[in-house]
Amino acid sequence: MINKVAIQGVIGSFHHIVSQEFFSNPVDVIECMTFDRVVDALITKECDAAIMALENSIAGSIIPNYALIDKYGLHIVGEHYLDIQHNLMGLPNQNIEDIKEVYSHPMALLQCKAFFKQYPHIKLVEDKDTAEVARRIQEKNIPGIGAIASVKAAEIFELDILAHSIQTIKHNETRFVIVKRKNAEVLESEINKASVKFEANHKRGSLATILNVMSDCKLNLTKIQSLPIVETPWKYAFFVDVTFENYLDFKKAKSVIDIMGDDFKVLGEYKNAKI
Amino acid sequence: MINKVAIQGVIGSFHHIVSQEFFSNPVDVIECMTFDRVVDALITKECDAAIMALENSIAGSIIPNYALIDKYGLHIVGEHYLDIQHNLMGLPNQNIEDIKEVYSHPMALLQCKAFFKQYPHIKLVEDKDTAEVARRIQEKNIPGIGAIASVKAAEIFELDILAHSIQTIKHNETRFVIVKRKNAEVLESEINKASVKFEANHKRGSLATILNVMSDCKLNLTKIQSLPIVETPWKYAFFVDVTFENYLDFKKAKSVIDIMGDDFKVLGEYKNAKI
Repeated sequence: MINKVAIQGVIGSFHHIVSQEFFSNPVDVIECMTFDRVVDALITKECDAAIMALENSIAGSIIPNYALIDKYGLHIVGEHYLDIQHNLMGLPNQNIEDIKEVYSHPMALLQCKAFFKQYPHIKLVEDKDTAEVARRIQEKNIPGIGAIASVKAAEIFELDILAHSIQTIKHNETRFVIVKRKNAEVLESEINKASVKFEANHKRGSLATILNVMSDCKLNLTKIQSLPIVETPWKYAFFVDVTFENYLDFKKAKSVIDIMGDDFKVLGEYKNAKI
Repeated sequence: MINKVAIQGVIGSFHHIVSQEFFSNPVDVIECMTFDRVVDALITKECDAAIMALENSIAGSIIPNYALIDKYGLHIVGEHYLDIQHNLMGLPNQNIEDIKEVYSHPMALLQCKAFFKQYPHIKLVEDKDTAEVARRIQEKNIPGIGAIASVKAAEIFELDILAHSIQTIKHNETRFVIVKRKNAEVLESEINKASVKFEANHKRGSLATILNVMSDCKLNLTKIQSLPIVETPWKYAFFVDVTFENYLDFKKAKSVIDIMGDDFKVLGEYKNAKI
């Protein structure tokens, strides 16, 4: 059983929400300010699992996190999807006219810029984290200051939400993965998704050949991403996610591609969380 | 002939360098602070071409820029590669011990963090642009302050480079594209690369089938990127770059895929800049 996981951000952050929704038991978290620190906490055995955002529907893949998983040989043991919604919050019994300044992460401020155009009296100030500002408002009991964070953060830090879903693009689904140092003992009967990495050159057909094997083995492709391999011109690494009904089909594909492809690596075999 | 192009950033920025290297004649630039503004300048006919970074070897694709090109039906008419190198610069006749503060874009500060660990006396301050700080140092004649920018910016603003290539990851190749409102009249004999977009579902083989056509038509794949289509579960958009020797081969592939694939769109046909 997992009791402690490393997350990016603090309590009330989206990574924290994933940690509470994914595991069947409550888990403690190690709050990390960078993804490098998240991986560090895992490999130095401060915890037995870590949570990392891998892609979102606005910005696409978070390539550096793929690189971290690949470099440190981590194993993806599960995935979780969250629809990211930003909310404006402050100390109770205030209304939006009382808020003079809003502190948040530059990315959150950017995503909510259109909303704040209606409130020119509010000054936007960059800060290092979203949920951390919510915590500070509560701890130091600061009126007149707003935070942009999750509903969960408002609950934890007992703040009132003054406006819901204030981000410009309303739908921002983010995919998180749960990673471990070693492959978890997921039951084969429960595995219906896998993430793999392989290399191939740009010569015509080399990728198509591998995808044909996957197709012949009844695998459905849900994501593909090529990355040039900097040291080797015209050679590419492909990160591919596939789903399947029968684990034996994936096993068969693995053994065939292993022979054909260079540097074929399974980054994880797990249960598909997307219905 | 192109006389004016929209760029992201100011004179001395990497987009500006591309504008001077790509065109055979000198061009004026419209300095834009966001990519939305770059596209806006192009579609409102303030200029006849714009330059946009599309991907780099550290962070991968810049998805929002693909989305802008797709949404506004822009045409890629050329590409250019640049190896991004950050340099520390200040007013002449100072050494690194004289620099008390360095102002730059958060991303540049992040990429050069390891370098500044050796100089704990330097305070790092976030600013909105890299080259713009170099310009300010010259215009206001400010000693003791450093900028992080290109060699070109140091030349333009007559600053001395105190340290070359200070970014942690030494190799950061960035691919820029030149876009226009309409398809340029590139000579067919000069076209040996194309960027296309098509949609396909996750059912096994649908992507492999299209890649097989490309392979049969002698196209080499140099990039592939899937993006979920938010409104349609299990349907994906694929952005693919291909190179070829004979334009007729690409024409043939186009006509076949047009029949097979949904929403097949050519984002641009141009000359491959990667030797």
